Amino acid sequence: MKHLYIIGIGSGNPEHMTVQAINALNKVDVVFVPSKGEAKAKLADVRKDICTRYINAVGVKIIDYAVSSRDTFERSYTQSVDAWHAGIASTYEHLLIESIPDSGTAAFLVWGDPGLYDSTIRIIERVKQRGHVAFDYSVIPGITSIQALTASHRIPLNLVGKSVQITTGRRLAESFPGLADSAVVMLDGEQAFAKINDPDAYIYWGAYVGTSDEILIAGRLADVSNEIIATRAAARARHGWIMDIYLLRKGHDFEE
Amino acid sequence: MKHLYIIGIGSGNPEHMTVQAINALNKVDVVFVPSKGEAKAKLADVRKDICTRYINAVGVKIIDYAVSSRDTFERSYTQSVDAWHAGIASTYEHLLIESIPDSGTAAFLVWGDPGLYDSTIRIIERVKQRGHVAFDYSVIPGITSIQALTASHRIPLNLVGKSVQITTGRRLAESFPGLADSAVVMLDGEQAFAKINDPDAYIYWGAYVGTSDEILIAGRLADVSNEIIATRAAARARHGWIMDIYLLRKGHDFEE
Ligand SMILES: C[S@@+](CC[C@H](N)C(=O)[O-])C[C@H]1O[C@@H](n2cnc3c(N)ncnc32)[C@H](O)[C@@H]1O
Ligand SMILES: C[S@@+](CC[C@H](N)C(=O)[O-])C[C@H]1O[C@@H](n2cnc3c(N)ncnc32)[C@H](O)[C@@H]1O
Repeated sequence: MKHLYIIGIGSGNPEHMTVQAINALNKVDVVFVPSKGEAKAKLADVRKDICTRYINAVGVKIIDYAVSSRDTFERSYTQSVDAWHAGIASTYEHLLIESIPDSGTAAFLVWGDPGLYDSTIRIIERVKQRGHVAFDYSVIPGITSIQALTASHRIPLNLVGKSVQITTGRRLAESFPGLADSAVVMLDGEQAFAKINDPDAYIYWGAYVGTSDEILIAGRLADVSNEIIATRAAARARHGWIMDIYLLRKGHDFEE
Repeated sequence: MKHLYIIGIGSGNPEHMTVQAINALNKVDVVFVPSKGEAKAKLADVRKDICTRYINAVGVKIIDYAVSSRDTFERSYTQSVDAWHAGIASTYEHLLIESIPDSGTAAFLVWGDPGLYDSTIRIIERVKQRGHVAFDYSVIPGITSIQALTASHRIPLNLVGKSVQITTGRRLAESFPGLADSAVVMLDGEQAFAKINDPDAYIYWGAYVGTSDEILIAGRLADVSNEIIATRAAARARHGWIMDIYLLRKGHDFEE
């Protein structure tokens, strides 16, 4: 049977790679790298850099494939994601059938950790359900952008004994402030932090965290909100794209 | 100035170690390993195994130190943790002053990631605030038990576009079911999942995840709850201790 490794590669620093991930990479026949069609060429570069640095085994083939983008025309968010995943599943199915030798192995390199706001696992499950190609797969954990953010800021993710909410820009208002005293926000295209009006909230923001372009800003939200908006806009213009993440916090350790 | 690395070592599998963590380990003069006094000898063993496997540099010294345990007598949870941290801060201060050469470097090895339910960062900040020893420090991210759990179960942490709550056994009832459709529970000494009465909830449970003793159970909470309780009790009796973690989930992807 063919075997697939879904490998978390960390969040931008090639040294986030784990020994487990490197060992898996050196065991496979093929590594699939999304590059053609990927807007964020830098991300494809990090994946290629990882292959160059860490693959010592001879004969590992690197295969590029194009990723389609999400069609939002006259569709709800959920419908558009569902249709998008179906399209990627067809691409993956084709790769699995055509590009992995019989009883061979292959790797997908996933940004950060494969479990966190990434759909490779669920799309591979779709391919499995369709039943056109027999294969098994394993998942190898990776350093998430959450761990990269808190390490760069040198802060704990949670207050002592308290909970943490991981959420998106769209959903932030549902949980912070109010329910969560620590909220990590990812996938935020709308700077949702700017709509939070709380004199006691702190923000720990980072862009391109773990890479040589890393930018960090931390402080009382009311004090640094505008600085983050301006810095983010300038960085986005300079690079042509941005990935950013932040932790919002209310309260302190050892308050009863 | 002295420099300290707070290094995340992953959650039990020595192959969780990142290249960044290994490089840091090979740069330091001293590695501090909590062993004397640690009830969970297995955890100290993993740390020692990591040192043996990955340190190639000559002259890196390994220093054991005893960790005091938390005194809960006539104290609230918060007071007891605060006092406990103060005690550990004294231990760390002593280590920093006595065991790191002038302008030398040292490493603390932290289970999982240093940001997640771990107090090394906040205790080191206490030592810094006290001002008796001048030093700087960096934090190196590690694979958390959350990533280890979802990788072993081969599941996404979140539903498409939805939030995730990270919480403790004590606090679970505040958020699931009701607020969170995905809740990860750590530090649960009381099997809080057993008190949740929801016919639609699923659980993905793991003990000693990532180690050779790993146990995984998944299914509808109502169906597997008793099996988890029995398995957990037996494993705990057999090993003398247990570390377990689980994800509770309600609902499915692509429900509007
Ligand atoms: C589709 S999600 C993938 C998350 C990834 N699987 C992980 O484990 O971090 C993309 C989001 O992750 C965050 N992100 C990923 N890498 C980042 C980095 N190096 N710096 C800042 N944010 C990052 C951003 O919030 C971005 O919108
Ligand atoms: C004090 S916290 C430390 C968490 C750690 N810093 C991390 O990143 O996972 C200890 C809790 O982590 C969880 N845990 C850590 N390692 C684990 C493992 N290998 N298997 C299951 N649970 C684990 C358990 O819930 C345990 O009660």
